[in-house]
Amino acid sequence: MADQAYDVLGIGNAIIDVIARSDDDVLARENLAKGSMSLIDEARALSLYETMGAGKIISGGSAANTIVGAASLGAKACFIGKVKADDAGHAFTHDLRATGVHYATAPAAFGPATARCLILVTPDGERTMNTYLGASQNLTAEDIDPALVERAKITYLEGYLWDPPAAKEAFVKAAAVAHQANRLVALTLSDAFCVDRYRDEFLNLIRKKTVDIVFANEHELKSLYQTGDIDTAIAALRDDDTLGVVTRSEHGSVVVTREETLAAPAFPIDRLVDTTGAGDLFAAGFLTGLTRDANYLTCARLGAMAASEVIQHYGARPEANLLDMARENGLL
Amino acid sequence: MADQAYDVLGIGNAIIDVIARSDDDVLARENLAKGSMSLIDEARALSLYETMGAGKIISGGSAANTIVGAASLGAKACFIGKVKADDAGHAFTHDLRATGVHYATAPAAFGPATARCLILVTPDGERTMNTYLGASQNLTAEDIDPALVERAKITYLEGYLWDPPAAKEAFVKAAAVAHQANRLVALTLSDAFCVDRYRDEFLNLIRKKTVDIVFANEHELKSLYQTGDIDTAIAALRDDDTLGVVTRSEHGSVVVTREETLAAPAFPIDRLVDTTGAGDLFAAGFLTGLTRDANYLTCARLGAMAASEVIQHYGARPEANLLDMARENGLL
Repeated sequence: MADQAYDVLGIGNAIIDVIARSDDDVLARENLAKGSMSLIDEARALSLYETMGAGKIISGGSAANTIVGAASLGAKACFIGKVKADDAGHAFTHDLRATGVHYATAPAAFGPATARCLILVTPDGERTMNTYLGASQNLTAEDIDPALVERAKITYLEGYLWDPPAAKEAFVKAAAVAHQANRLVALTLSDAFCVDRYRDEFLNLIRKKTVDIVFANEHELKSLYQTGDIDTAIAALRDDDTLGVVTRSEHGSVVVTREETLAAPAFPIDRLVDTTGAGDLFAAGFLTGLTRDANYLTCARLGAMAASEVIQHYGARPEANLLDMARENGLL
Repeated sequence: MADQAYDVLGIGNAIIDVIARSDDDVLARENLAKGSMSLIDEARALSLYETMGAGKIISGGSAANTIVGAASLGAKACFIGKVKADDAGHAFTHDLRATGVHYATAPAAFGPATARCLILVTPDGERTMNTYLGASQNLTAEDIDPALVERAKITYLEGYLWDPPAAKEAFVKAAAVAHQANRLVALTLSDAFCVDRYRDEFLNLIRKKTVDIVFANEHELKSLYQTGDIDTAIAALRDDDTLGVVTRSEHGSVVVTREETLAAPAFPIDRLVDTTGAGDLFAAGFLTGLTRDANYLTCARLGAMAASEVIQHYGARPEANLLDMARENGLL
């Protein structure tokens, strides 16, 4: 077994977020389903951008947000994902490395620009995301450095990787390398529409034990098992015999194994500003807890704590030092 | 006299801000004077960026911030400033127009990139700015559309325009056109080091009545009159017989004319996060009050209110609707 150099390795789409406040009328006019992530092409990105208010540009990407959260919690973290060698790609790289994350994926010199996600935040704090995948589509199996995967306790993969065709192979390769090295593989289902696009493949990943840990919110889990009832979905997840972690917004989370189902509370907040990154940061807390051999309830509480920080400001990356916060709350 | 189509026209450097939290050690190590603005070249911008934490990218520029603040207060506002036709320039243009500001300066197709300001925010909320002027240096007198100047009640110019050599001519042309059309011309001294670079020229602008209104903070005013005593500086400003507005951070502001000196209080805040834009937004409130024929004290209160909003979050552009805020406070 290779030396363990990293707690968590994240693999995902490398994306810059453009975040602007919006209102429900705009969502209706632009035909956007609140809370969802839609894939858009460059022309649509340009036209949608024109309808948006003044924005903040902050590094994002689901798995990347998780990895930054894990680093903020003190985990040794690394990331694999593809940017272009343009201004946005430079900013993405800078922001990852500035938080202490190891990031060495070669940027694309040619082809589409670094991926952008146009995020409309409504007054209720909900975010509606529109992603132009750009350079992130060029992530291939070649970008998966086996030495990195072998040396990470947990490899964390986002379901969104199923969207760019070549990234799927990168995902499968990473999972195989991790398991060969006796490491854990975690998957987030990412988005209910993403689950809808790849339901059978995601179920296969779970049932064939390509992944050991599954993160999902209620919408995603119901979509996975094609039921409108969350208890039915949780029972199905239990039958699939994986470590399942289901986030339920202000209702906290549920940890599901074949043996037990544990409920953990949400973490109190003063003011909901922007839910972008809530699920990503929950995963950061849970995974970091796992690497510290914390019990599942503590892992879930760490997740809830990390999520609570990120939803109280714009952007999906933590602004506070999460390790200090965890220590103050007796969670690490 | 041409029809008045705009309340305020701002002319300034068109800049994208990169904002990151920092600490006093970094300022010391990088030899940066807290609270100041330094001009840096591209190589220094790159090396300083590497030392900075993860950043947020938000449109900035002193006069541009003021203009956006005025628009948020309900003023009809326009802006002249130079970006390059690159991603940052596109974002700057989008953000201005999204707030209802008229902005039509032709972007540069060639030459240096859109200007960037690297802003280090220390835990005390103070910002230390490092500006790479880039494309903003290419603003020339040709970019000053006389029709725009003639139709704006107040033309507001930033002292920073004295840094790019050609912009100085643009400044002087705008002031001349405005006065020919019987409009008002306002100047912000921008920064104590900027005053130090151009003291005699700024004094000339005031004494020769090239400008009618002068905004300064205490440091800038003391630098202008080369005194360590603020009362001496205010007395000198009074003798120069202009409408002077001196901001004093948490001590509020002082409005100085030959006839009277009025003190106005600061506006209460919950939490100081980032002082970037405080002076810019003060000017936005004061100028908007003037265009509404409010008395000087009300203008100063409007300024303090607008400044209070912007210092409670990262970035120098308002996130709240300032007109609603002003109405709730009985100021507009």
